[in-house]
Amino acid sequence: MRWVQSFLEGDGKNKALLGGKGAGLCEMTRLGLPVPTGFVITTEACTNFLTSGEAWPEGLAEEVETAVQALEQRTGKRFGDHDKPLLVSVRSGAAVSMPGMMDTVLNLGLNRETAGALARATGNPRFAWDSYRRFIQMFGDVVLGIHYTRFSRIEEQVLQGTHIDEVDADQMQELCTRLEEVVLEHGQSFPHDPREQLRFAIDAVFRSYNSHRARYYRKTHDIPDDAGTAVNVQLMVFGNMGDDSGTGVCFTRNPKTGARGLFGEWLPNAQGEDVVAGVRTPLPLNDNSERDGLQLQHAMSGPYADLLEMQAKLEAHYGDMQDIEFTIERGHLYLLQTRKGKRTAQAAVQIVVDLVEEGVIDRSEALSRIDPRQLEYVLRPVISPDAKKKVVARGLDASPGAACGRVVFEPQDCQDFHDNNEPTILVRLETSPEDIQGMTVAQGVLTARGGQTSHAAVVARGMGKPCVVGCTDIQVDYARELFYAGDDVVRKGDWITIDGGTGEVMLGQVEMIAPQTDSGAMATLLGWADDEARLRVRANADTGADAARARQLGAVGIGLCRTEHMFFQPEALKAIRQMILADDTRSRQRALNEILPIQRQMFAEIFKAMEGLPVTIRLLDPPLHEFLPQRESDITEVAQDLGVRPDALRARLSQLHEANPMLGHRGVRVGITTPEVYATQVRAIFEAACDLERKGVKVYPEVMIPLVGLEAELERMRALVIETAERVIQQYGSGPDYKIGTMIELPRAALIADKVARHADFFSFGTNDLTQMTWGYSRDDMGKFFADYQREGVLRESPLAVFDIEGVGQLVHMGVDKGRTTNPRLKTGVCGEHGGDPVGVGFFHRVGLDYVSCSPYRVPVARLAAAHASLGLL
Amino acid sequence: MRWVQSFLEGDGKNKALLGGKGAGLCEMTRLGLPVPTGFVITTEACTNFLTSGEAWPEGLAEEVETAVQALEQRTGKRFGDHDKPLLVSVRSGAAVSMPGMMDTVLNLGLNRETAGALARATGNPRFAWDSYRRFIQMFGDVVLGIHYTRFSRIEEQVLQGTHIDEVDADQMQELCTRLEEVVLEHGQSFPHDPREQLRFAIDAVFRSYNSHRARYYRKTHDIPDDAGTAVNVQLMVFGNMGDDSGTGVCFTRNPKTGARGLFGEWLPNAQGEDVVAGVRTPLPLNDNSERDGLQLQHAMSGPYADLLEMQAKLEAHYGDMQDIEFTIERGHLYLLQTRKGKRTAQAAVQIVVDLVEEGVIDRSEALSRIDPRQLEYVLRPVISPDAKKKVVARGLDASPGAACGRVVFEPQDCQDFHDNNEPTILVRLETSPEDIQGMTVAQGVLTARGGQTSHAAVVARGMGKPCVVGCTDIQVDYARELFYAGDDVVRKGDWITIDGGTGEVMLGQVEMIAPQTDSGAMATLLGWADDEARLRVRANADTGADAARARQLGAVGIGLCRTEHMFFQPEALKAIRQMILADDTRSRQRALNEILPIQRQMFAEIFKAMEGLPVTIRLLDPPLHEFLPQRESDITEVAQDLGVRPDALRARLSQLHEANPMLGHRGVRVGITTPEVYATQVRAIFEAACDLERKGVKVYPEVMIPLVGLEAELERMRALVIETAERVIQQYGSGPDYKIGTMIELPRAALIADKVARHADFFSFGTNDLTQMTWGYSRDDMGKFFADYQREGVLRESPLAVFDIEGVGQLVHMGVDKGRTTNPRLKTGVCGEHGGDPVGVGFFHRVGLDYVSCSPYRVPVARLAAAHASLGLL
Repeated sequence: MRWVQSFLEGDGKNKALLGGKGAGLCEMTRLGLPVPTGFVITTEACTNFLTSGEAWPEGLAEEVETAVQALEQRTGKRFGDHDKPLLVSVRSGAAVSMPGMMDTVLNLGLNRETAGALARATGNPRFAWDSYRRFIQMFGDVVLGIHYTRFSRIEEQVLQGTHIDEVDADQMQELCTRLEEVVLEHGQSFPHDPREQLRFAIDAVFRSYNSHRARYYRKTHDIPDDAGTAVNVQLMVFGNMGDDSGTGVCFTRNPKTGARGLFGEWLPNAQGEDVVAGVRTPLPLNDNSERDGLQLQHAMSGPYADLLEMQAKLEAHYGDMQDIEFTIERGHLYLLQTRKGKRTAQAAVQIVVDLVEEGVIDRSEALSRIDPRQLEYVLRPVISPDAKKKVVARGLDASPGAACGRVVFEPQDCQDFHDNNEPTILVRLETSPEDIQGMTVAQGVLTARGGQTSHAAVVARGMGKPCVVGCTDIQVDYARELFYAGDDVVRKGDWITIDGGTGEVMLGQVEMIAPQTDSGAMATLLGWADDEARLRVRANADTGADAARARQLGAVGIGLCRTEHMFFQPEALKAIRQMILADDTRSRQRALNEILPIQRQMFAEIFKAMEGLPVTIRLLDPPLHEFLPQRESDITEVAQDLGVRPDALRARLSQLHEANPMLGHRGVRVGITTPEVYATQVRAIFEAACDLERKGVKVYPEVMIPLVGLEAELERMRALVIETAERVIQQYGSGPDYKIGTMIELPRAALIADKVARHADFFSFGTNDLTQMTWGYSRDDMGKFFADYQREGVLRESPLAVFDIEGVGQLVHMGVDKGRTTNPRLKTGVCGEHGGDPVGVGFFHRVGLDYVSCSPYRVPVARLAAAHASLGLL
Repeated sequence: MRWVQSFLEGDGKNKALLGGKGAGLCEMTRLGLPVPTGFVITTEACTNFLTSGEAWPEGLAEEVETAVQALEQRTGKRFGDHDKPLLVSVRSGAAVSMPGMMDTVLNLGLNRETAGALARATGNPRFAWDSYRRFIQMFGDVVLGIHYTRFSRIEEQVLQGTHIDEVDADQMQELCTRLEEVVLEHGQSFPHDPREQLRFAIDAVFRSYNSHRARYYRKTHDIPDDAGTAVNVQLMVFGNMGDDSGTGVCFTRNPKTGARGLFGEWLPNAQGEDVVAGVRTPLPLNDNSERDGLQLQHAMSGPYADLLEMQAKLEAHYGDMQDIEFTIERGHLYLLQTRKGKRTAQAAVQIVVDLVEEGVIDRSEALSRIDPRQLEYVLRPVISPDAKKKVVARGLDASPGAACGRVVFEPQDCQDFHDNNEPTILVRLETSPEDIQGMTVAQGVLTARGGQTSHAAVVARGMGKPCVVGCTDIQVDYARELFYAGDDVVRKGDWITIDGGTGEVMLGQVEMIAPQTDSGAMATLLGWADDEARLRVRANADTGADAARARQLGAVGIGLCRTEHMFFQPEALKAIRQMILADDTRSRQRALNEILPIQRQMFAEIFKAMEGLPVTIRLLDPPLHEFLPQRESDITEVAQDLGVRPDALRARLSQLHEANPMLGHRGVRVGITTPEVYATQVRAIFEAACDLERKGVKVYPEVMIPLVGLEAELERMRALVIETAERVIQQYGSGPDYKIGTMIELPRAALIADKVARHADFFSFGTNDLTQMTWGYSRDDMGKFFADYQREGVLRESPLAVFDIEGVGQLVHMGVDKGRTTNPRLKTGVCGEHGGDPVGVGFFHRVGLDYVSCSPYRVPVARLAAAHASLGLL
């Protein structure tokens, strides 16, 4: 046979020839699964048909006839038979699935006579005539090209207002007669001969490959246009042949939890569409379901036992949890479809770990099956799939997880509500470091502006807090304490729910599913990941609590401790403001001395949490003006608090004003111009470290200088750190081993990495700033054009979210290679947002970095991604 | 002789052995110049002395004695002779000059007896005893280590209030006696024997090589510490031996204009120090000086003739204009020193051109002798060297040339003063595009903020207008219309003068020298430069007038025509504001249509000025908000003008606000999101071009897309340009050849240049932005830390002023190389500020760019620099 293959013969791997569905049916058949039998007409037949003026290729007609006869023989049914009529489905099936794009004809083989036979066989004449009615319409529409409105107009005339569900068998039969006349009026007689029906149906399926919508689908999905579709001709089976029949869907494991055992539902004496239509309430298969009612295992123990056997066979063959559609026709179990079952992230992890224990797959396979991005969801609350929700706006999914609370606009209100045990969602145009305290106690954050690495997004991710940013659908009015979202007005105190995993903003309190923190399987999987991975995973954490959480999630060190957040502690904030306003070195140092014990305490907490592991501390990075009040309304208050005239504060603010703060006086530039700031921080680090070492706590501080672009900058700061550290160590008598390194976050630093590396024990690539400088993008501003860029297809994903291997990657590669030429023992890592982005992790593995560092909640993601990288999957 | 060489023997090239001064004296002697005779003790003798416990090496004493005897023989004078005493100077002279760092003893050989002989010989006993007095003090201080205060205390006692100038010869002799006693009291007798004096003096000079200040000087100037100094022992000659004696200084050519002929002044019967002291008014040498008085050529025709002979000999030997010190002792001319004469930039050009014509040097040598940076000054007014000035503040030298005018703070006032024929200096914190009209009519610009590439600096350089920026010494108070500079208050309407070549701000109207635009020699030199250079030089020009000036200065095309300045024309400004405020595409296009004819007209003017040469036009680059009023005070007015509510304007402003506009929605990003803006510009370009071509004017438009960072951006814009251009060309029937290219100004563009080049006919490296992104610097903000960086030695020069070969250079190199891999015919150039910076030009030559483009006034600089690059000098 050249054009046709029966399910018994077809090669289950040859999707190109048999299409995805056809190959699957062949494979299931050859596995011995009870698939309704049938045959496949190959994709080659289709392409031949389409390229030769819609003529059947030579031999096709004969082969189809041979296959039909074989089918009749195997089933004991015959086309047109008045007793046991053969009914088949005719379905398209291309190599690459195009769901819903091509045509299908069901119940082919029906005519007045065979419909009568079906009525007798099912004892359900209404069902039989209804099937015939549907067949006439489907065949008329799909095969004969009669517009469906012609049929519905006649239906309306006949029914005269009666709903189709209330029509009885006789009326249904009458309706069929009238529909046959529609076909006749259209200039064709309805083909009663099933063989003729089949020939027409095959033509129609072939043709549907070139329908407008199918072509459009291929174009938008980058599917080649000349592959053709296969045609599957398969025996129809019926679950509505009486009480020994039924239909159902099931998973071979629980898709929500991953627990072993069949999980699903069924309906006795019903067709598959009845389950989908939801007219009748399905019954449980067994005790695994929470649903009440007659269980299949009790109602039909035989077919249920067959199902259990199939479960084992399917999982053994496919090596994964399956989603099955089945029909029981007169006590015979038929499998209509099996495919990889969709599952929650939590179930996915449980399943692969179990499959390894069951010996079905190995650890590498288990690791490879879990998308690292999924893991983030395992640790966060999510919106319940069944929840009713009113989505009023949509922004960028900045930090996953769902949160629900009362709307507030001022960070201070978060605290006030919090004090009354009221959860809040902080809604702002954008956030700034002043808002951090408020964000800490809010449930979630929603901003109208900003992108994936805006301040709000970065901080929220660091806190593991749900966050939606760049939500241009809302208009925030601070003065009136409300925001508009379309026609809705949301006022301070109103409840909203946000989903940081989808970017949705919903009114009211939407039902959520709590995070699954029972992580037995997760811990097992991530343990395997660590064994497989070469890249180590650290976390970005600024407090002892964050560090402890990060360690719990498997971080083997802190890759980035931002010290500026410490300055936003109320006492520290006052002191740093005094420092900034100080006119001379002495009063500046006096102010810094007040900050010293606060910082020392916070460093000590982090060191304790990370005992025995390295902690990379970045010295002050933001420009000093970030510590001064930005809003005119706060200036008077702050000035009074500091005991200065508001004008003096305004003057300093104006002096510190920068046109482009991103490119301004910050990072090491502050260290060079105001070395006492860095010296005080280093002193705090080493006093904390020496004190803990004395108490027997092993600490490994790594001091990191940000924004270096010149060799001389790092050279000087290294000298300053060593001098300060050694002085403290001398005071204490002994101290920790320590390292001094730098962020590589300016393109220039990467370009001259060989020179910079002479003064660095480690490089940490700050890919946020490196990306911003390399692209000339500002995370706070790119929203202005990025939406247009996405819509126009100029740029698919933000380089701040997904690492830009093509461009920024060159600089990272260059930085590592050049750095190692002058310093072969250089340790290298990444501490930007991309440390938790699988695309980035894959690249960082390939260029030979030692570690990545990311938000605590992304540590599991990064650990698995690192394993994927080792496995060559990224 | 091993340790000593006479001037007659020494090798004039061997500076290492004889020191710079000694070698020079030997060379002059061997040339037959009348140098007072003498000998050199080698640097090796010094190092031997210093490394062997300050003992003279074996044979040195004998060699010195032999040399002294030879000297006595040659001069007919003898040490200690009562009639013809030999007097010598003993001077240090290391291989590398360390001016003022080591010791010198003059008039060595004087004692009571020889002083008497000097008195008789000069007929000037006061001079003789004064010389002796100085000798005792100098010898006592330098050689014997007696602190000079001991001598001055005795002087005060003796003089009792009489000024030393009023002391007569007898009193002077008495003073000498008392000073001899000081030496005696110090425990030493003053050595009367000149040979003993000489031995001591040589020791002292040797030792002074290791003095603290000499060591420090070597350390700070990177001079090795073990080279030693030579000691020059040279006959003293006296220009005060009567009316047949005299002294003077002269140049072999006019140092202000370069004109041929001796140029200098002299004093009869005087010592060199009399000329320096300015007590007597010098007389002219000849008619070349404007000075009145007895000319040397008439007073002493013999020595004058000798001087003329020397002039020829010196220039023939040294191949350059010389600066000579001479003394005439009793009719004999002695040459005390000759060195390359300092000269103005204008003179320097004239001289090298003349020297080529005279056959003294060749063209390459002529080109190599002129520092390209000098040429900028030839074309600008400068402060007169003799001018009296009160410098009250100092900023960055942003655009050279001096300017004088009345202080104004508002751009509008520039116009008002201008209308009354009053020149102005515009003083601002910083400038913005709104200020351009004011800058156009101001004489110069002074800003308190900003760096070398701040808006003010860039625009002023483009206009060839003097400008001082980043002048943190001044505090500007707009409200009270004044600025403070130290204790001075400068109010609106007060006169000030600024020097954009030095950064000085001066009170009042300071005398200036007008620019020399007679450029015969300049034209000749630049013609040679063009023959030598490979790099072509274009100019950055935004108007027809600028383009014409650029062409006059030798630009062979426009490398950057910024189109945004056109939008600041009043009519265009209103239309662009309407465009920005428009809600829909139609009203946006209507506003753009109003701008179309204005732009077309301006493009036509530039094309006409550059007939036959290429003109690169950059499509709109700045973010749109730059066209809206930034000051609250202007908002109401502008809103009224546009017929919108001020709130609507404020809302749009707030919507367009950017945290980092440098990294914001500008350049091609505007082109992608609002393609009608670019399309209108392209239409204007091609309508102007087609119209001119029709009239027989040959134009070569090159359309340049700014800020490209993605291949897709250029691909789309190229399509837009072609589509629009071809439509216009079709309307006109025919049109010009044109090119489409891009700026490479984002690091990413350089990194993916191979991809970008697929859609580009040319690359123009925008080194301003490229430097800012690569370094993470903002030209408007870097002033905040750059001064500290310079003071601390972290960074010597701003990378925005002097091209950063080490860092940014790598990106340019990569960009060119990668671009050519996919597009071998790619044309490459630079249009940033560095196109006129010789360091940059040298690099751009080496990496193989085709052209550089710079401000019109820098075109001569760049042309010469391009030649220097070809000659391997850069």
